[in-house]
Amino acid sequence: MTTLIKNGTVVTATEKMHADVLIDGEKVVGVAAPGAHGWVADSEIDAAGKYVLPGGVDVHTHFQLPFGGTYVSDDFESGTRAAAFGGTTTVVDFAVQVKGQTVREGYDAWMALADGNCAIDYGFHMIVGDINDSSLKEMEAIVDDGVTSFKLFMAYPGVLYSDDGEIFRAMQQAAQDGTTIMMHAENGIAIDVLREQAVSRGETDPRYHTITRPPTTESEAVHRSIVLAELAGCPLYVVHMSAKEAVAELTVARDRGLPVYGETCPHYLHLSLEDHVAAPGFEGAKYVCSTPIREKDNQEYLWNALARGDLQVVSTDHACFFFDDDEDTPDRDLPGPVMGRQKRLGEGDFTFIPNGLPGVEERFNVMYQSGVVEGRFSINRFVELVATNPAKMFGMYPQKGTIAIGSDADIVIYDPGTSFVYSTDTIHGNIDYTAYEGMTIEATIDKVLSRGKVIVDAGTYVGSKTHGRYLKRGLSEMPV
Amino acid sequence: MTTLIKNGTVVTATEKMHADVLIDGEKVVGVAAPGAHGWVADSEIDAAGKYVLPGGVDVHTHFQLPFGGTYVSDDFESGTRAAAFGGTTTVVDFAVQVKGQTVREGYDAWMALADGNCAIDYGFHMIVGDINDSSLKEMEAIVDDGVTSFKLFMAYPGVLYSDDGEIFRAMQQAAQDGTTIMMHAENGIAIDVLREQAVSRGETDPRYHTITRPPTTESEAVHRSIVLAELAGCPLYVVHMSAKEAVAELTVARDRGLPVYGETCPHYLHLSLEDHVAAPGFEGAKYVCSTPIREKDNQEYLWNALARGDLQVVSTDHACFFFDDDEDTPDRDLPGPVMGRQKRLGEGDFTFIPNGLPGVEERFNVMYQSGVVEGRFSINRFVELVATNPAKMFGMYPQKGTIAIGSDADIVIYDPGTSFVYSTDTIHGNIDYTAYEGMTIEATIDKVLSRGKVIVDAGTYVGSKTHGRYLKRGLSEMPV
Amino acid sequence: MTTLIKNGTVVTATEKMHADVLIDGEKVVGVAAPGAHGWVADSEIDAAGKYVLPGGVDVHTHFQLPFGGTYVSDDFESGTRAAAFGGTTTVVDFAVQVKGQTVREGYDAWMALADGNCAIDYGFHMIVGDINDSSLKEMEAIVDDGVTSFKLFMAYPGVLYSDDGEIFRAMQQAAQDGTTIMMHAENGIAIDVLREQAVSRGETDPRYHTITRPPTTESEAVHRSIVLAELAGCPLYVVHMSAKEAVAELTVARDRGLPVYGETCPHYLHLSLEDHVAAPGFEGAKYVCSTPIREKDNQEYLWNALARGDLQVVSTDHACFFFDDDEDTPDRDLPGPVMGRQKRLGEGDFTFIPNGLPGVEERFNVMYQSGVVEGRFSINRFVELVATNPAKMFGMYPQKGTIAIGSDADIVIYDPGTSFVYSTDTIHGNIDYTAYEGMTIEATIDKVLSRGKVIVDAGTYVGSKTHGRYLKRGLSEMPV
Amino acid sequence: MTTLIKNGTVVTATEKMHADVLIDGEKVVGVAAPGAHGWVADSEIDAAGKYVLPGGVDVHTHFQLPFGGTYVSDDFESGTRAAAFGGTTTVVDFAVQVKGQTVREGYDAWMALADGNCAIDYGFHMIVGDINDSSLKEMEAIVDDGVTSFKLFMAYPGVLYSDDGEIFRAMQQAAQDGTTIMMHAENGIAIDVLREQAVSRGETDPRYHTITRPPTTESEAVHRSIVLAELAGCPLYVVHMSAKEAVAELTVARDRGLPVYGETCPHYLHLSLEDHVAAPGFEGAKYVCSTPIREKDNQEYLWNALARGDLQVVSTDHACFFFDDDEDTPDRDLPGPVMGRQKRLGEGDFTFIPNGLPGVEERFNVMYQSGVVEGRFSINRFVELVATNPAKMFGMYPQKGTIAIGSDADIVIYDPGTSFVYSTDTIHGNIDYTAYEGMTIEATIDKVLSRGKVIVDAGTYVGSKTHGRYLKRGLSEMPV
Repeated sequence: MTTLIKNGTVVTATEKMHADVLIDGEKVVGVAAPGAHGWVADSEIDAAGKYVLPGGVDVHTHFQLPFGGTYVSDDFESGTRAAAFGGTTTVVDFAVQVKGQTVREGYDAWMALADGNCAIDYGFHMIVGDINDSSLKEMEAIVDDGVTSFKLFMAYPGVLYSDDGEIFRAMQQAAQDGTTIMMHAENGIAIDVLREQAVSRGETDPRYHTITRPPTTESEAVHRSIVLAELAGCPLYVVHMSAKEAVAELTVARDRGLPVYGETCPHYLHLSLEDHVAAPGFEGAKYVCSTPIREKDNQEYLWNALARGDLQVVSTDHACFFFDDDEDTPDRDLPGPVMGRQKRLGEGDFTFIPNGLPGVEERFNVMYQSGVVEGRFSINRFVELVATNPAKMFGMYPQKGTIAIGSDADIVIYDPGTSFVYSTDTIHGNIDYTAYEGMTIEATIDKVLSRGKVIVDAGTYVGSKTHGRYLKRGLSEMPV
Repeated sequence: MTTLIKNGTVVTATEKMHADVLIDGEKVVGVAAPGAHGWVADSEIDAAGKYVLPGGVDVHTHFQLPFGGTYVSDDFESGTRAAAFGGTTTVVDFAVQVKGQTVREGYDAWMALADGNCAIDYGFHMIVGDINDSSLKEMEAIVDDGVTSFKLFMAYPGVLYSDDGEIFRAMQQAAQDGTTIMMHAENGIAIDVLREQAVSRGETDPRYHTITRPPTTESEAVHRSIVLAELAGCPLYVVHMSAKEAVAELTVARDRGLPVYGETCPHYLHLSLEDHVAAPGFEGAKYVCSTPIREKDNQEYLWNALARGDLQVVSTDHACFFFDDDEDTPDRDLPGPVMGRQKRLGEGDFTFIPNGLPGVEERFNVMYQSGVVEGRFSINRFVELVATNPAKMFGMYPQKGTIAIGSDADIVIYDPGTSFVYSTDTIHGNIDYTAYEGMTIEATIDKVLSRGKVIVDAGTYVGSKTHGRYLKRGLSEMPV
Repeated sequence: MTTLIKNGTVVTATEKMHADVLIDGEKVVGVAAPGAHGWVADSEIDAAGKYVLPGGVDVHTHFQLPFGGTYVSDDFESGTRAAAFGGTTTVVDFAVQVKGQTVREGYDAWMALADGNCAIDYGFHMIVGDINDSSLKEMEAIVDDGVTSFKLFMAYPGVLYSDDGEIFRAMQQAAQDGTTIMMHAENGIAIDVLREQAVSRGETDPRYHTITRPPTTESEAVHRSIVLAELAGCPLYVVHMSAKEAVAELTVARDRGLPVYGETCPHYLHLSLEDHVAAPGFEGAKYVCSTPIREKDNQEYLWNALARGDLQVVSTDHACFFFDDDEDTPDRDLPGPVMGRQKRLGEGDFTFIPNGLPGVEERFNVMYQSGVVEGRFSINRFVELVATNPAKMFGMYPQKGTIAIGSDADIVIYDPGTSFVYSTDTIHGNIDYTAYEGMTIEATIDKVLSRGKVIVDAGTYVGSKTHGRYLKRGLSEMPV
Repeated sequence: MTTLIKNGTVVTATEKMHADVLIDGEKVVGVAAPGAHGWVADSEIDAAGKYVLPGGVDVHTHFQLPFGGTYVSDDFESGTRAAAFGGTTTVVDFAVQVKGQTVREGYDAWMALADGNCAIDYGFHMIVGDINDSSLKEMEAIVDDGVTSFKLFMAYPGVLYSDDGEIFRAMQQAAQDGTTIMMHAENGIAIDVLREQAVSRGETDPRYHTITRPPTTESEAVHRSIVLAELAGCPLYVVHMSAKEAVAELTVARDRGLPVYGETCPHYLHLSLEDHVAAPGFEGAKYVCSTPIREKDNQEYLWNALARGDLQVVSTDHACFFFDDDEDTPDRDLPGPVMGRQKRLGEGDFTFIPNGLPGVEERFNVMYQSGVVEGRFSINRFVELVATNPAKMFGMYPQKGTIAIGSDADIVIYDPGTSFVYSTDTIHGNIDYTAYEGMTIEATIDKVLSRGKVIVDAGTYVGSKTHGRYLKRGLSEMPV
């Protein structure tokens, strides 16, 4: 079965070329000037006037994750379908080892949840929540299963938190194995003091979530994790960076040539404490996540860091919870593992608001709009940030993240001649709000191909939950 | 006329793929998996086991340039042929406006020198040596002729030197036109004091050339030119950077998001004051250039800056002068404009040594060897540094600098299964030494194609001095 | 003749002690606890409830200086008397060597102007406006006359400007002699381009004086002068710093242990572009000086630099010109060398406004009020900034700048129990405005002693213009 | 009872003056020019040709402290007597609250140990080893007892270690009370991993003590404690700094105007890993302390930081343990609490070497020699570092730390016309080695006065263990 995508503008991290793309089965096998190649295919897609882009790679999602007494509302089925609608053809989610479990047990449990339920290809990072001699050995062993990145938490004491010694030992293990440490970098110990004090003063509104996580609690943790990673000799990838002070720490370390990397997320680039988290009433709960949404002046700094390369990846940290539910809400007619109250758990005390936002569906579009259309960077850099770099960073390149001979035919046909407006009514995830309500995107996704198969066509999902395949990832091939 | 390059490993700044490349006339028209495309071509090149690389782009050469009472020994014919031998398929040389001339006069003179004498495609930057109301207007006008970058000198008072006011006005002009200012950044005024004092103390050996140009005379000028460029609002490209302190200034400015860029040259990465410039006798004169070859510890800093992106381009500043000539040397059996003494002019007084080194032939190979083979960066980054970035920086992309649909078929077939050793006996330029004498390169250039035509084949030049075409360059498309 | 100052609070850079001070002739000879010493003196001053402070040392004044077609309106007589009224007992003015003159001629001319006309002791820095082999030798010779600091200009091309080579040679001379280079650090060459362009666009109001001297024209020059001073090996003292970016350059250099120092002036700490220079009409001309008064947010940065030690001295750069004069103004009943129009010369074109402000009378009081009363630093630091450091910096310590055994009895009896308001009506210099109009000072100067002699008493001048003596200054004893 | 110190050179942090000093009882009551004062005293001290200096203030000593299964060998009697021999007239030791104790219990215990046993005046900082709601309240209450500084540990997990939350809460308490937090800044958690791993690899020699505490484990902790202190709003004083990277963190914070301070100790300025800790055999154990003695190149950085003000205090962290003891050593004829093995506890495993060095006797002399005689800073800066700043920093000024009217007559008569050599045979503490063995000091202590009483005279101790008095300290008066 061959497919020919004709007459489009093919864009990669480096190129922008008028060319036809030939797909054979699951792979891209040819790129050629229209009229020069003589190819006849089983099917043809007309991409005239459209971009032919690599499918998005979102390396930070959370589906079915238990958090704060509830679960994120998207399961692998609803979540990966929403991703597909949004032009993302690969996700890397997080398998979780909790205290008392083996790493393998965590991995197996999450593999089982995803298996047979994914619209698109997926991989797993491993959250190592219990670092000890035995789990360190498992970190090495699980590389053979395609897990080459391990996430640790400097926040959430008593839950997923690791102390500096545990972190350091895991980093030494990663250094030995060539794997990558991912870090949730916030000084959770100091933050917990601030949270307790705020609540005891009656400061319980959602905005105190941000106020009790001041920027230096993030930059301090970034600094510390860089020091530990340098001592251990491993690459470090800091997740969901939001404070300019924190990115500045990364910049200084990268200037010294250290293999340290950072991602930010669309919500840090578009939302602010002033306009969103501190909105009247409980509205701000929608935007409660950690690291927190910060003051507006951080946004331009983050955009600049993306443009100049000090941040390398845009992911979503997708972790959604229903906002407008309460105990009296009747059963909702929605798929997914939701039960009872979600964001509303934190009414009256922000510390009970589940942390997280939806984003897996919106990332590709909002980054194109604010990045490319608004002139912050080129369409090549856009592709690099949402597809190529994430794939290189986490050992999926060149299978994923680009349009090249031999790569998986994960492709978005993107039409810059049309536009649409984000609204809760038209999103596809198992969630009742979007953070980009009312935002106009000056392009639409015409088609999404995953391994050569069209899975979204003109706004309709034509895929299947058994299509997505587990990705055994290799070691990172990210240059400094 | 079509050509098929078969079974090679095609490398671009982003990709590395096993693919065949189809050329139609002067252009690349297809890239496809061997066996998947069904293409039949007029001629075939077997690239099995070899790299298929974009031809090198050297954006800093000097052919036929008068300097210090003599001329560089390579003219456009000998120089571009040497470039071709070394895998470089595009050069950008410098047309010179001297005091009292119009910009146009300088441009016309250099166009005439090059016309009909080049083995490969060529463009011109413009050295503006006389900045005034009229030459500023000419800077704008000459963009239509494909000159979009203008070089100024903070060194060489009384010759090409411009003062800060002249520089600032030229930068304002560039900001208005979208063109780029290239800067020779050395505080020539302070350096001249040091040179005079050294000579008056009898410090006349070649090594005093380096000693009288201390690192901060470079970093100061870089800092100053960044300040002026930021005030004026224009992009700045600092040529031939050699001091780590100077690169550090660039790094700090780039961290702030300023569009400032830097190149270094292979000689700064491989040669040192200790081992080369301070060699016994007059030997060091071979390595006299400005900015100077510095102490060894700068090298690793420069390599690191290339790897991490704070320097974006490797060029040569090719400007060669015969070393082993003297007044008694009989006529040499060599092409080119050489006359009389060259490096030997400075015996007894280093200030009379003509500044410059050969390099246009060696750049591609030595950067591959020291960069890729020795593990300092990937082959993708190599391609980016010697081809893609120079092309993007100076408005030649995507015509030059990559292998993509629609690009010029400037291609190097590179064989990593063989090796050779650099030696004066085997180089091809009009010069009697190489700075890389004895260096082993673990690859050889099998073939060089310029616009689809093979011009070097298995070590033999099969091109023509009428093949090379003038390149009208566009504005820079370099991202920060 | 002995004097006993009784019961006051004696303050030095280090101490604050309840003590009596015994003066014998011109010197302080004893400090002791009241009641413990048994001293009987020829005269007694009751300082109960008052501070006993070292007299102020203002190391940057300009009296009788020709500038822009006029002269500063204070001559040595009116200027030093105003200083005395304001608690300043030592000034260091500038002798000027202009092009074509010897250093000695400049020195002699200024010595003659001051001789017999000063209310207080005075010294001279030397402005070297014509650097050549011969004037460099004179820099060494004049140390014997007590001139140990030499001021150069990176601004005012064509007038006092020196190029980097001249500066560098003067710095080498200073390094050899142990003397200090003072720098007016502004990139005057770039500024002149901006000024010309502004005027040609019709931007002629006073505020364009500031706008055409952007902060980086100051910080660039500071950076460059530090680089040159480090190369030459001499101490550097940057005068009248106003931009936070410029002070930041100093900070970085001092962090590396370089002997570089900076002064600021009260007007940079109290006035702003927004409120003063950009005032409606021609009012802003009062505040035109170079470096310029800048945007308000620089003030807190400068205060912080004074508090933490990155700026070491507060001087005045006193250089006053009448504001409200015009060609029709009849002869004024004022002493001093004023003639014709002064600030009004620049009506219609800010480039003709003479640069400078009065301040020698106000410095001591406004620094006490804004520094000490408003809590920005201790009274010890106040004494250090206005007296001790200037004296140490310029080789006058311990004769001047402190109250210690053997020091000159230059003392201010300062009464924090009273207050007054600055107003044009009550100032004493030969000038028709004060920059601090309406500012309340919560202390008054009760008495000023110069070498043991009361010269100001309860607001009345009781000194004499023949009292002041020339100070042969030694080399700087300023620690880093 | 009055005393007159005649004809000496009186030195303070600011002044250097030829003067007589009059003491009445315990206080300095007069300073006057010889011949000018007419004073007759009960006793006279001839200081002609000698310096009259403030007695040293050592704000970091440990007497009688239990550590690692033994005690430091100096008790308050032997320790304060050794201090007096070395020109130090004030010590501030550490009272310790251990887990389970109240702050008050710790304070009372240490007050009892010192009471009646001190040759000189003494105060206490409080080590808060158990931070909780109740001990936080006690931190406020104990200010009335003259304890205004509280030491926390980021090292020694399981012993004195506090986590970031405890630290932060203590800092908030200090911010509220105006007290100062002292920090042992090392990432003890990461260090413990390195120590365990070293031992398990058989790396047990003393030098591994330094190697397992790399510089960034110090600088990281300094950075973190600065972040927490800035968030809490309290002053921070980092003890015993040894790594240049750590001081650099302090410098950056001070440049921003933060009230953060640092001390170093003579051993970090004179000893190195290369020459001392890595000495053959077990010799290195003498120099095992934490933070560790580091590589030699840190020394010049520390000296520079002292000279330029980024470190403000030189203390000793005096904590001595016998080196040449073993189980077979018969009872030694020495005072103090020594029992059994001390440094030898760590033979075969460096982790058992008690941490610490003697220094209270040597500090004053070695800092004078290496600082003043060797030209690193002035004698004024010497006085500031060893006396004035420590007194201001910890609320003892002006009672201690200077020679001023009303200050305690704590005075050292110091003779720069003589010299001596440090040797184990001639030191006076309860210890069997000095770190400065063989070092020549080009001055000798002629006399030491404590509150007007001579306690050391020509090398003989003439004091009494009941002379020393407890100092109720006030809040810090240290400027930034």
